[in-house]
Amino acid sequence: MHIVVLAGGVGGARFLAGLRAVTPPESITAVVNTGDDVTMHGLRICPDLDTVMYTLGGAIDPERGWGRVGESWTVKEELAGYGAEPTWFGLGDRDLATHLVRTRMLDAGYPLSQVTAALADRWQPGVELLPMSDQRVETHVVVTDPDSGRRQAIHFQEWWVRHRAALEASAFVQVGVETARPAPGVVEAFATADAVVLAPSNPVVSIGTILGVPGLREALLATPGRVVGIAPVVSGAVVRGMADRCLPVVGVEVSAEGIGRHYGARSDGGLLDSWLVHTGDRADVPGVDVRAVPLLMSDPDATAAMARAALDAAGV
Amino acid sequence: MHIVVLAGGVGGARFLAGLRAVTPPESITAVVNTGDDVTMHGLRICPDLDTVMYTLGGAIDPERGWGRVGESWTVKEELAGYGAEPTWFGLGDRDLATHLVRTRMLDAGYPLSQVTAALADRWQPGVELLPMSDQRVETHVVVTDPDSGRRQAIHFQEWWVRHRAALEASAFVQVGVETARPAPGVVEAFATADAVVLAPSNPVVSIGTILGVPGLREALLATPGRVVGIAPVVSGAVVRGMADRCLPVVGVEVSAEGIGRHYGARSDGGLLDSWLVHTGDRADVPGVDVRAVPLLMSDPDATAAMARAALDAAGV
Repeated sequence: MHIVVLAGGVGGARFLAGLRAVTPPESITAVVNTGDDVTMHGLRICPDLDTVMYTLGGAIDPERGWGRVGESWTVKEELAGYGAEPTWFGLGDRDLATHLVRTRMLDAGYPLSQVTAALADRWQPGVELLPMSDQRVETHVVVTDPDSGRRQAIHFQEWWVRHRAALEASAFVQVGVETARPAPGVVEAFATADAVVLAPSNPVVSIGTILGVPGLREALLATPGRVVGIAPVVSGAVVRGMADRCLPVVGVEVSAEGIGRHYGARSDGGLLDSWLVHTGDRADVPGVDVRAVPLLMSDPDATAAMARAALDAAGV
Repeated sequence: MHIVVLAGGVGGARFLAGLRAVTPPESITAVVNTGDDVTMHGLRICPDLDTVMYTLGGAIDPERGWGRVGESWTVKEELAGYGAEPTWFGLGDRDLATHLVRTRMLDAGYPLSQVTAALADRWQPGVELLPMSDQRVETHVVVTDPDSGRRQAIHFQEWWVRHRAALEASAFVQVGVETARPAPGVVEAFATADAVVLAPSNPVVSIGTILGVPGLREALLATPGRVVGIAPVVSGAVVRGMADRCLPVVGVEVSAEGIGRHYGARSDGGLLDSWLVHTGDRADVPGVDVRAVPLLMSDPDATAAMARAALDAAGV
């Protein structure tokens, strides 16, 4: 069996942990968003890849959901002491070593997919961990400066972390996406998949960004397996993250139905064969097998049950 | 008054602290060895500049004599966890922020002298802190592999830190020195100096490397001030560091007399007008005013008294 999961950060990582509990890890390929990637302090940082890697490697901070457990912040404080570097990014000391090794390998010419495999060799996530692309794709957000009234594009991390998504956004732009290609193994994974799952990640800046890589959506739609999406919205509210700040920007209602229709039915040129919404939520998505199951990943058992429900919906 | 000091790491830094106690800091220019500089983990590290900066800025670890007080080693341990980077170099978390800022500025095109000034803006060493050169000069050590018997050149830091100078050295090579120039301000400092002091630093790989920058020795010899050297050897033994591993390589006896003769009399084409040796030591250096004074920098008062003796010898 081969299950391919499209994943962003925290939600995708937790879903993958649950999936790994109900199916052999070697049967899972995670295709992870790299649109959140950013270069800070000269270091290449891949937040979603790291969140998945640390979560599956048992090194994640369970409270924050990102970064390393037992983290310290000495370098960040010292950088602030020099007053020369941005201070809003949460760069932990343990985490920094990952970025140093990654940056060194990228500078040496290794593609991100190989760098990811080398880093994962330490953490042994079990699943195959693939970046969506080896080419740089960085999500920028078109915002309006509240003081000057001028529009400008800022990096997604600056919008998300520094401004807590409080700046009004008018568009998301994936810089570099036009010339990106699916990373080695991604197209092949879809071609052999018995099921493809869209994890309960941000539909705009995580799943949407992955699907924006030229050729990737087409490869996904050609998969012999069923495509199952999991709503990242419960009772009309996002479970975590700030998808409710992103969905309206692309004209999508913050609801299981809104997101389901946004993805669309595979029979109608969209993505989904099946769509999982939270128990009690309703979603009318024409042409899609909509199922209501518990979607709160509140503990490992609940998460595993949710993953099992996704496999059931995929018929595997 | 204007005092120019040629300095290496720990010995030079402590001498400068003593000198600052007996003469206004703004009258002091430190010309610091950069031959120990190394790029590790993609970060540019300047051990001697940092030792001087941290020492005069009150941030040095007083036990080790190098690096930051209250240091932690999280990043170093994590890098070791990946097994991908050398683990023998003592890279502390606090210290690392300095190297990150430096590397960023160098990558942005700022010369090392401007980077050094920007970093020193945080630490306020008081004295003018100049690298010997803005060009990269890196000391390599020609060693013989004890297993294969093959000669190879390794970076000074690898010889010094990794091998504790235990590998037999046959030569020191300053890579890049041919095309180096004195950093902005160095030649000018000598031209206006009322005294030039060779700090009690390693005569081979610190003072010797500084003097090897084309044009620097000539500028020093043209100074209107007197040139005073301070022996880094007391009772025939090095006070700290491993100068006793370096001096024989260049055929110099490990003694105050041996080093004094190596520097030579200014009246005879050498460097020195005056040479300070430790109380009880003897040194016959023809043409040089040799003075025996206490040279152990055991506490701030002793160090200040030594600095005062150097100024006395310079007649200022």
